[in-house]
Amino acid sequence: MTKKIILSFLLILFCSSNKSGAQTTDSTTIRTIYTETLANAKAYEWLRDLCNNIGGRLSGSPEAAQAVKWAERTMKEAGADTVWLQEVWVPHWVRGKKESAYIMDGSGLKQSVPVCALGGSIATPAKGITAQVIEVNTFEELKQLGEEKIKGKIVFFNHPFETKFINTFNAYGEAVEYRWRGPSEAARYGAVASIVRSMTLSQDDFPHTGAMHYADSVEKIPCCAISTNGANLLSSIMKADKKATFYLQMNCASLDSVLSYNVIGELRGKEFPDEYITVGGHLDSWETGDGAHDDGAGVVQSIEVIRTFKALGIKPKRTIRAVAFMNEENGTKGGRKYATEAKRKNEKHIAALEADAGGTAPFGYGLEMSMEKKNKVKEWAPLFLPYNLWNFDEDHGGADISYLQKELEVPQFGLMVESQRYFDFHHAASDTFDKINKRELLLGAASLAAMIHLLCDHGL
Amino acid sequence: MTKKIILSFLLILFCSSNKSGAQTTDSTTIRTIYTETLANAKAYEWLRDLCNNIGGRLSGSPEAAQAVKWAERTMKEAGADTVWLQEVWVPHWVRGKKESAYIMDGSGLKQSVPVCALGGSIATPAKGITAQVIEVNTFEELKQLGEEKIKGKIVFFNHPFETKFINTFNAYGEAVEYRWRGPSEAARYGAVASIVRSMTLSQDDFPHTGAMHYADSVEKIPCCAISTNGANLLSSIMKADKKATFYLQMNCASLDSVLSYNVIGELRGKEFPDEYITVGGHLDSWETGDGAHDDGAGVVQSIEVIRTFKALGIKPKRTIRAVAFMNEENGTKGGRKYATEAKRKNEKHIAALEADAGGTAPFGYGLEMSMEKKNKVKEWAPLFLPYNLWNFDEDHGGADISYLQKELEVPQFGLMVESQRYFDFHHAASDTFDKINKRELLLGAASLAAMIHLLCDHGL
Repeated sequence: MTKKIILSFLLILFCSSNKSGAQTTDSTTIRTIYTETLANAKAYEWLRDLCNNIGGRLSGSPEAAQAVKWAERTMKEAGADTVWLQEVWVPHWVRGKKESAYIMDGSGLKQSVPVCALGGSIATPAKGITAQVIEVNTFEELKQLGEEKIKGKIVFFNHPFETKFINTFNAYGEAVEYRWRGPSEAARYGAVASIVRSMTLSQDDFPHTGAMHYADSVEKIPCCAISTNGANLLSSIMKADKKATFYLQMNCASLDSVLSYNVIGELRGKEFPDEYITVGGHLDSWETGDGAHDDGAGVVQSIEVIRTFKALGIKPKRTIRAVAFMNEENGTKGGRKYATEAKRKNEKHIAALEADAGGTAPFGYGLEMSMEKKNKVKEWAPLFLPYNLWNFDEDHGGADISYLQKELEVPQFGLMVESQRYFDFHHAASDTFDKINKRELLLGAASLAAMIHLLCDHGL
Repeated sequence: MTKKIILSFLLILFCSSNKSGAQTTDSTTIRTIYTETLANAKAYEWLRDLCNNIGGRLSGSPEAAQAVKWAERTMKEAGADTVWLQEVWVPHWVRGKKESAYIMDGSGLKQSVPVCALGGSIATPAKGITAQVIEVNTFEELKQLGEEKIKGKIVFFNHPFETKFINTFNAYGEAVEYRWRGPSEAARYGAVASIVRSMTLSQDDFPHTGAMHYADSVEKIPCCAISTNGANLLSSIMKADKKATFYLQMNCASLDSVLSYNVIGELRGKEFPDEYITVGGHLDSWETGDGAHDDGAGVVQSIEVIRTFKALGIKPKRTIRAVAFMNEENGTKGGRKYATEAKRKNEKHIAALEADAGGTAPFGYGLEMSMEKKNKVKEWAPLFLPYNLWNFDEDHGGADISYLQKELEVPQFGLMVESQRYFDFHHAASDTFDKINKRELLLGAASLAAMIHLLCDHGL
């Protein structure tokens, strides 16, 4: 209580109608937001609970259903005025029992390698597939080899994760094509399966999964990711031994759609309750790991915004909605549904923020909005400099909130965070709670709360 | 070879005498520096070798002597024109066998707690010390309690590591006073020993050591750090049980000074060979951990500058010296000696850079120099923005290079890096190689090389 009284006093003290006064008030409130979050946030313990007691939670799984209950409970604990579930039908792909893969050299010696099915892949026949491997680095190489060289073989996309980019998301953007459309490109030339090098700069034994897409016009073939160590081994054996073959066995399957939910927690605005600001992350995750960085972090940071506002006794002028989106990883059905419902109800959405780049230290916001609105946001940039957020120049939003922009032209804010470590863990078994640094996670949460405070007070 | 030819061609292509041409050349060279370092650096493997095969290396220890040989070998491998050792006499403090400490409650129940002697502490008597504990948060509280309440007791400085600072070094700067002068302040009032809460935001069982200083005028008492979990336990037991006591046994000792070395590797300038730019980290480390972040990182980053220049075939205009300074942790004898020798030889030093804040992602340079020189450096700031270095506004240099400034007014550059995780490991057993992210380490190395390239070309 004492804390709230002191804060109210400070707010009154600094309240003023002129612009420099407003800036002072904003900077004071933002300072109290960071101080409160860094000292008393629950986001870190919430994430520990989610990762360690539920773990990986792919759409349609029992764990995803548990995560929905967890999010509902946690939003209530955070102090949301109302919490509700929004129905979403989601795809239900299952990995089945663990994949099996080995390289067999010309002398019959077998060497196991770590692989995992790509999300959405069909299974191999029950007895597996054995075939020679054709390694390519690019789609151009694939095309040049053509059907004659590829038919009946397994195509191995060994495209390296480029080191030169400073933001590792740029390397991902370039490499991910080979995961997403590689299988169908290989199938066009008669390949029987495809393997993609894991999208990471880390040299280790973790295969990194992720969504892929079958083109309508070609046959579906099984596809998997191989760890970077496995990729290097495969490449070197294939170069040295032309008789070597690869064995792959996977049991994955796409089942019927499942009813799931977005979880929404609301802090009602006191002045413009019908104007909404959405902040979210995605609740589902690949089941290879525990979905700590991707995207348990974004979910708990979004819920933390509500806890921080409540703890400080800040009653927002506009309505804040924390949303735990379902199914970002393999369908974005949650993001689509949230936007469709917003449009159907004719809701007025001022802005949407998404945190889905890992729980590391924030350094800015990507802005996807009109130049006029960008310029307004950039006027606030100096308020964030004391907290090491300096970059407001990238076009970047979020997969889930992008549908709000498509449907209702809602400005998007994508929280940008330090990217060097992210792909070490991304979609792999190593994406676990111990990879999260508490302070980095909380700085992200406070940065969301600070921007939301400005949006609530000043609109956009 | 091909790479060198391409680079030479690029350099010729962009070479121009007008200012915008110079900027283009600079930005092109800086891009090639980052690309080369991120793709081919050896810094990460060098650090693995140093940490895992030598480990902690406190001044005067056999490990520190091994580290000198390691640094000499590594600088040669990096391609330095000349490598030499500079004699430095260093203090030789040893921990002795592992410390022992427990809390005993009024009923005689003993509970062990993790402690470690502070660097420089005297030992306890062989049978240990048993005494009641007085907890204080500040020096003011200590003063108010006075001799009557403190005499014969153990003072426990439970000053918390403040969460509100965004740069954790600010919290350290505030808390470290209790480690540095706490023991003598406690001794002034007759305390028999002192305990300090570990300087970290992490809640765990690692005690964090570090240097302390005995004032001349008061009796020396044994002093140790306690882990944060241990500190919380001690505090709660002491509050609940007035009869509880603390047992502390430590075997540390200060031995005779030892002859050790700074290790210096030079890349001779082609145009102004007698103008020096120094880049360094410190080779010694606390022996509680493996000295990965503190400061193996800074050492390998400094040596990497030489490897990168050589790999790119860049012949610097001025002479670059990579220096592995000895004895930063408990005496800075290496930094002092290097500066004294520079003065004695009447060397012309243009600038000195130090990396000693951990191997995390860089975000800028602290500048300790005249306003005129600061302004010149800030003109280069836009060249660093593509690499996420945005902050050139702090006054910050380095402990080792500060003596160059004192002796010869040499401008200091302190590499500033993301600080959230640093104190999780700092001076503790957890400062090990697995805490290093390769990319973050290499970005620091490339950032040093980029600034050194500008200093070599343009002077200061």
